[in-house]
Amino acid sequence: MAKRKQIKFGVLVHGVGGNISGWRHPEVLTDASVNFPYYKEQVQIAEAGKVDLVFIADGLYITEKSIPHFLNRFEPITLLSALASVTTNIGLVGTLSTSYSDPFTVARQFSSLDHLSGGRAGWNLVTSPLEGSAKNFGKPEHPTHDERYKIAEEHLEVTRGLWDSWEDDAFVRNKETGVFFDPSKLHRLDHQGKYFNVQGPLNIARSKQGQPVVFQAGSSESGRNLAGKGADAVFTGHETLEEAQEFYKDVKGRAVANGRSVDDIVILPGIAPIIGRTQEEAERKYEEIASLVSIQNALDYLGRFFEHHDFSQYPLDEPFPELGDLGSNSFRSGTDKIKKAAKEQGLTLRQVALQSATPRGQFIGTPEKVADLIQKWHEEEAADGFIVYSALPSGLRDFVELVIPILQERGVYRTEYESDTLRGNLGLPIPANRYSVAKVNS
Amino acid sequence: MAKRKQIKFGVLVHGVGGNISGWRHPEVLTDASVNFPYYKEQVQIAEAGKVDLVFIADGLYITEKSIPHFLNRFEPITLLSALASVTTNIGLVGTLSTSYSDPFTVARQFSSLDHLSGGRAGWNLVTSPLEGSAKNFGKPEHPTHDERYKIAEEHLEVTRGLWDSWEDDAFVRNKETGVFFDPSKLHRLDHQGKYFNVQGPLNIARSKQGQPVVFQAGSSESGRNLAGKGADAVFTGHETLEEAQEFYKDVKGRAVANGRSVDDIVILPGIAPIIGRTQEEAERKYEEIASLVSIQNALDYLGRFFEHHDFSQYPLDEPFPELGDLGSNSFRSGTDKIKKAAKEQGLTLRQVALQSATPRGQFIGTPEKVADLIQKWHEEEAADGFIVYSALPSGLRDFVELVIPILQERGVYRTEYESDTLRGNLGLPIPANRYSVAKVNS
Repeated sequence: MAKRKQIKFGVLVHGVGGNISGWRHPEVLTDASVNFPYYKEQVQIAEAGKVDLVFIADGLYITEKSIPHFLNRFEPITLLSALASVTTNIGLVGTLSTSYSDPFTVARQFSSLDHLSGGRAGWNLVTSPLEGSAKNFGKPEHPTHDERYKIAEEHLEVTRGLWDSWEDDAFVRNKETGVFFDPSKLHRLDHQGKYFNVQGPLNIARSKQGQPVVFQAGSSESGRNLAGKGADAVFTGHETLEEAQEFYKDVKGRAVANGRSVDDIVILPGIAPIIGRTQEEAERKYEEIASLVSIQNALDYLGRFFEHHDFSQYPLDEPFPELGDLGSNSFRSGTDKIKKAAKEQGLTLRQVALQSATPRGQFIGTPEKVADLIQKWHEEEAADGFIVYSALPSGLRDFVELVIPILQERGVYRTEYESDTLRGNLGLPIPANRYSVAKVNS
Repeated sequence: MAKRKQIKFGVLVHGVGGNISGWRHPEVLTDASVNFPYYKEQVQIAEAGKVDLVFIADGLYITEKSIPHFLNRFEPITLLSALASVTTNIGLVGTLSTSYSDPFTVARQFSSLDHLSGGRAGWNLVTSPLEGSAKNFGKPEHPTHDERYKIAEEHLEVTRGLWDSWEDDAFVRNKETGVFFDPSKLHRLDHQGKYFNVQGPLNIARSKQGQPVVFQAGSSESGRNLAGKGADAVFTGHETLEEAQEFYKDVKGRAVANGRSVDDIVILPGIAPIIGRTQEEAERKYEEIASLVSIQNALDYLGRFFEHHDFSQYPLDEPFPELGDLGSNSFRSGTDKIKKAAKEQGLTLRQVALQSATPRGQFIGTPEKVADLIQKWHEEEAADGFIVYSALPSGLRDFVELVIPILQERGVYRTEYESDTLRGNLGLPIPANRYSVAKVNS
């Protein structure tokens, strides 16, 4: 089986958890979101499992109703850099917003992380769903969904341009002659655009993997377009095989329409496996986590996706309320999905809120069952791999110790890292420097 | 002798070096500026010497005439974070510009570094001397020197405000009751100012040292004011004891005028010791470094301080040219000093350029001589300590192995870290949270 056909795994490490009440579980360290030894241990477990990458999510706005993990957590660039020096092969991917950052700083920080880690950096490009973010960055208003994606596209163009400032053989470093670099291999970008004016050059060279891997995590129409056009990898989420297959085909198609190969983009749905020795044990674990959530907490959690809407004003056990356009300027694909499911399945507000707070997913059961499902999704072109999230710290260990060996045995998952760069492990090509290419072609 | 009266040391680690041609020395790794194992080794040597902090400088604009270290180097936040996880006690201080950054991001990244390192972060606040920086950040022009300092003052006010978003006992984390935090101890800043509008709160708690240590490195009138008003530490540079004493007295006086104690601010001049078994050996080492600099390189280096002025247009062996105001909007205190010295000492352009490229300083000689001088500057109130810079990697090792033991023997330097936080080692107070104070006083 070709290397490219092996399954890829990322792990989302998420402090006290994405579950609003997960911190109350006996197993969870209540300060996990700002506890570096905790992160280090989780990532070293993942590395022992030959996992491709660790993924650190982010957000730029909190209110007192935000879930515990969002209130007090590490900033991704600093956390990933600290992890770089205590790991050797695992990729280091973090979220950073194009709506509230300067391309020069973003390009520098990810490039510097890429050098520090020997070619393991990845940028999860997001446009910031939360409207309140504008207030923390002195902007009169949060740009609309469409405009955010236009900004993102230009931001990425600038950032990639800055990353190519130096050709790979620019640094001569000849002590004898005193020539440190070849000025003909240093390039100013001179970008003048609608949203950004950036001269360059960047004050750091390209790393071993050429450019950091660019992730994209939005699944709306605009998000899919951006992914097809310029992302190396996509972090997405789907409840069923069919949905995931539709997304996979659609985004790969958009990549091809942009003149790229289907292999130039890696699609990784998120899954939250819960492993038990029996199906019953796994179900009990899920129930234990779900039961920690109060309905008020669940309503607050749901509200965040809908521009911090107050859901406590509606009756709990009547059909999910009609919300019009609400949510479409924040987490558009997510809120569309919630509205659609509520309507189609005739769900009450209570049901929607509790399901959102503790999504169940399909990946619950024995190690064999979870491995089968993973393999099925991979074989049936729903995924190139998965971003694995566990509500409890032991979940990652279970996955690495119980599920991964089955996939290794079946020959669909690596037993050793193929590479020490993230691109190398994901099977992504090293992008040629645009200026070197121009010279070859001229 | 009181703990506060001990000498403090920082080390500036600077890749291939601040000397324009230092990379040609046989001992220097030519990729040192992007070589993490090199940084790690240097910082671990410093930590073995119980040094207070490592200092990482920065800049936001290069041209093809920039010195090698500036062309291709790590970004400070990422580098310091990577160092955090491979060190235990040494402080981690880095430069970040208030002219080209968002307070929300700055507050988050330094706070996150502070948590990652267990209370060892420091921010060297600069206003960015290089005019070209504006072009990399889409600004119509680089703000004037005076305006940059106004921006800096407001930026620091906002950043410190964000750092206090959470009172120290805000996180209850009671699994039993389900109370994660006390909402009365979470505070929005709601800053509306001339340069920044920032709502807050910050999505990270205060660290063990309350707030990261704020350094200031400008020595102009505006720089001294800012230091006196709001900095915890000052990185400065002086050629003579008298100059350093004048600066020390002046800045401590400004701190007192702002209602602070003289002990609330630590003044650390930079020194570049060169150690030999004899004075002659040390002098030979200096000559070896100085001889690597070509006059063209030295002119380029000098030009950067004067807004990238082209000095090759002037005769080399005639008096230093009359430059009017040139340089006063970039490195003001530095260019003023160069102009003054050239005039008073009747220096030629060649002399000024070579001296700037390889400043000699006084701290050259045997370990005893250098230790004597350090002790003298400290005792005679020219310095609370020093930021030590070595042109060669072996320079730091010499300093730690040969000079520090003498000072330890004399009882003026620690033999063990007093604390695991930077504030603790520098003897700086932990700032109380403004909101907790307000409650106590009301």
